[in-house]
Amino acid sequence: MANFDLMRRLTLDTGGKILLLVMDGVGGLPREQGGPTELEAAHTPNLDRLAREGSCGLSIPVTRGVAPGSGPAHLALFGYDPLVYEIGRGVLEATGIGLAVNPGDVAIRGNFCTVDGNGVITDRRAGRISTEEGAKRVELLQGISLSGVQFDVQIAKEYRFAVVMRGEGLNSAIADTDPQQTGVKPFPARALDPAAEKTADLTNQFLAEVAKRLKGHEPANMATLRGFAIDPALPKYADVYKLKAACVAVYPMYKGVSGLVGMDIIETTAHDTTADEFNRVAKIWDKYDFVFCHIKYTDSRGEDGDFDAKVKVIEGVDEALPILLDMNPDVMIVTGDHSTPATYKAHSWHPVPTLLWAPETHMTDRAEAYGERECMTGALGHFMAADLMPLALAHAKRLKKFGA
Amino acid sequence: MANFDLMRRLTLDTGGKILLLVMDGVGGLPREQGGPTELEAAHTPNLDRLAREGSCGLSIPVTRGVAPGSGPAHLALFGYDPLVYEIGRGVLEATGIGLAVNPGDVAIRGNFCTVDGNGVITDRRAGRISTEEGAKRVELLQGISLSGVQFDVQIAKEYRFAVVMRGEGLNSAIADTDPQQTGVKPFPARALDPAAEKTADLTNQFLAEVAKRLKGHEPANMATLRGFAIDPALPKYADVYKLKAACVAVYPMYKGVSGLVGMDIIETTAHDTTADEFNRVAKIWDKYDFVFCHIKYTDSRGEDGDFDAKVKVIEGVDEALPILLDMNPDVMIVTGDHSTPATYKAHSWHPVPTLLWAPETHMTDRAEAYGERECMTGALGHFMAADLMPLALAHAKRLKKFGA
Repeated sequence: MANFDLMRRLTLDTGGKILLLVMDGVGGLPREQGGPTELEAAHTPNLDRLAREGSCGLSIPVTRGVAPGSGPAHLALFGYDPLVYEIGRGVLEATGIGLAVNPGDVAIRGNFCTVDGNGVITDRRAGRISTEEGAKRVELLQGISLSGVQFDVQIAKEYRFAVVMRGEGLNSAIADTDPQQTGVKPFPARALDPAAEKTADLTNQFLAEVAKRLKGHEPANMATLRGFAIDPALPKYADVYKLKAACVAVYPMYKGVSGLVGMDIIETTAHDTTADEFNRVAKIWDKYDFVFCHIKYTDSRGEDGDFDAKVKVIEGVDEALPILLDMNPDVMIVTGDHSTPATYKAHSWHPVPTLLWAPETHMTDRAEAYGERECMTGALGHFMAADLMPLALAHAKRLKKFGA
Repeated sequence: MANFDLMRRLTLDTGGKILLLVMDGVGGLPREQGGPTELEAAHTPNLDRLAREGSCGLSIPVTRGVAPGSGPAHLALFGYDPLVYEIGRGVLEATGIGLAVNPGDVAIRGNFCTVDGNGVITDRRAGRISTEEGAKRVELLQGISLSGVQFDVQIAKEYRFAVVMRGEGLNSAIADTDPQQTGVKPFPARALDPAAEKTADLTNQFLAEVAKRLKGHEPANMATLRGFAIDPALPKYADVYKLKAACVAVYPMYKGVSGLVGMDIIETTAHDTTADEFNRVAKIWDKYDFVFCHIKYTDSRGEDGDFDAKVKVIEGVDEALPILLDMNPDVMIVTGDHSTPATYKAHSWHPVPTLLWAPETHMTDRAEAYGERECMTGALGHFMAADLMPLALAHAKRLKKFGA
């Protein structure tokens, strides 16, 4: 498993350029006994060529049998043991939309909701209002400051927003106020530790102010808060790997994790296609040692249980791949953060098909295509996802020999 | 490796039913260069079908290159790192025959032996007397109590019995009294730690009483003691996995380990055939979430060095397998606790062929049969035996996602 002291000791500040392409939830399962998985069913001549030329294997995100959330799964791909480094949801949400979380701050994820005249929740997602409508409500919540603590509020997507509390003596040990059901009032903020009493009080004052300001702004006339969290102070890419790194991703949460490990977050739009994202990568390629590019919709279609649609997303990635190949990366890795089999409709624990292509240094194996069963026979075997970064650095000739 | 804090956090109390079938020492080696192993030579259409449909792999019991005893090998299969959790032999023996070992007790394994008029051992196993004869000697040793410490004695099998000392201030740091050879007297009990002096004294008084009571009862006219041990206080299945679990095994030692992890021990007889054991599993299947079924004779025939007889035992298991398959388990695992190649005549370190069949969640691989070389190509790769339980739970849909 990646060991940052060892990495700091061995990494060079020169070497090849690394591209990490993550197709979220790419791993799958056969739809019927004896049939192909999503990846195996997809027509992917470019990915198959990389697999044939390079090294393949199966990546274990956290530990065998454990299906990870997106946060821990990406931390692992970035080289951080997700059982050692945990990031609170509030921090992920805030940093993902560019809202800085500094030491001492408390970050929170907020959902607009609808309440009736008695304050009882009738819709936990405020009718899934548009991002534009959500942004209007966020405007109403600007500039709240209580007892010297400032509440920065920013829209994330649709009914979701982030809050960052900035001030002295804050503590994140606070239970969610979202009751996870309708027909009841939101919970008041409750301290899980005596040291968080002050923060809980301030949160309740903030929620009272939110109720006042959103009054009459149905369907988003109230909010619930969850995932209270502080900056996890993760070691940074520049420090542990000596890499100048960037992230190209559409969804806030992946930008969030990338920001926390010190990557520059490249601007994207919610409408970016795979080709748009790849073009953004190509545009910044000269300026970085490492670029992480995230494709969301493999996971989304897997969660929908739509096998054929997931196949199509994969085929779209393959079709656009020449944009990336034309950059001539020294190391190109294609993997997923976890599997999301369409038959399972959720993140799963199945090891993730991974290919590592580095023409100057890769070992060629017998895998003939990028797919689950081909990867089982590959040069990388089964490996922990957190070992992928050392492998990437090695193949980029960025690691010194250990010992004399 | 299984992490119980993580398991406690992720396990659900609902999900599929799991069957763990362990053929003791099932892994083998080719009898001649280029030939099949025992498993590969055996005609096993049922096991081969499960292997073809499900996921195969090779399990590493303790760590690469290390051949385990039965205790640690089973602990590993149950999810306990055997380098972290160790069970003394005395505890295994006592719990295996239903003699409770409570916190504070010291459990010991006893062997009846034959001594001459000078107390010199002439037969370390008392002519391998029958269990019936052994039980008669144990009758003579009932009710011994010294300085408030009670000695509970119970027959195990043939010349073997168990002793549990119950009282205050006991300590198990005592060397074996069995000299492991004839022509010498048994050693006195000797404390390996000053804190065990009192227990050593009491043990020597007990042995003097044993000598007195067994006098004239040749060939079992004395006893040696070994494996002094205390309750290892293992986390229990109900606690760490939220599983109601049962064990069907014929030999005491496997019942012992199962009892220590909190499984209910189903009554069996020493004459149970494989089919008898499977029928016992079928009979209790409705009442449990998890059943462990243990087949002893693969190991015994391996230790005998009888390749063909081991093949026959395996074929017998395959033949009886429909009894288990008719139960429609959600997850069925077939494995061994270690390898016992007939050519090696002993437990070995070779990774153990393992198949995991879970029609709703398994990944199909290219393994076409249940055997060593097919398992090398499988979806599970090489894995630590202690990771098998998380895999079983995941495939039974009994684990929540880790993190958001």
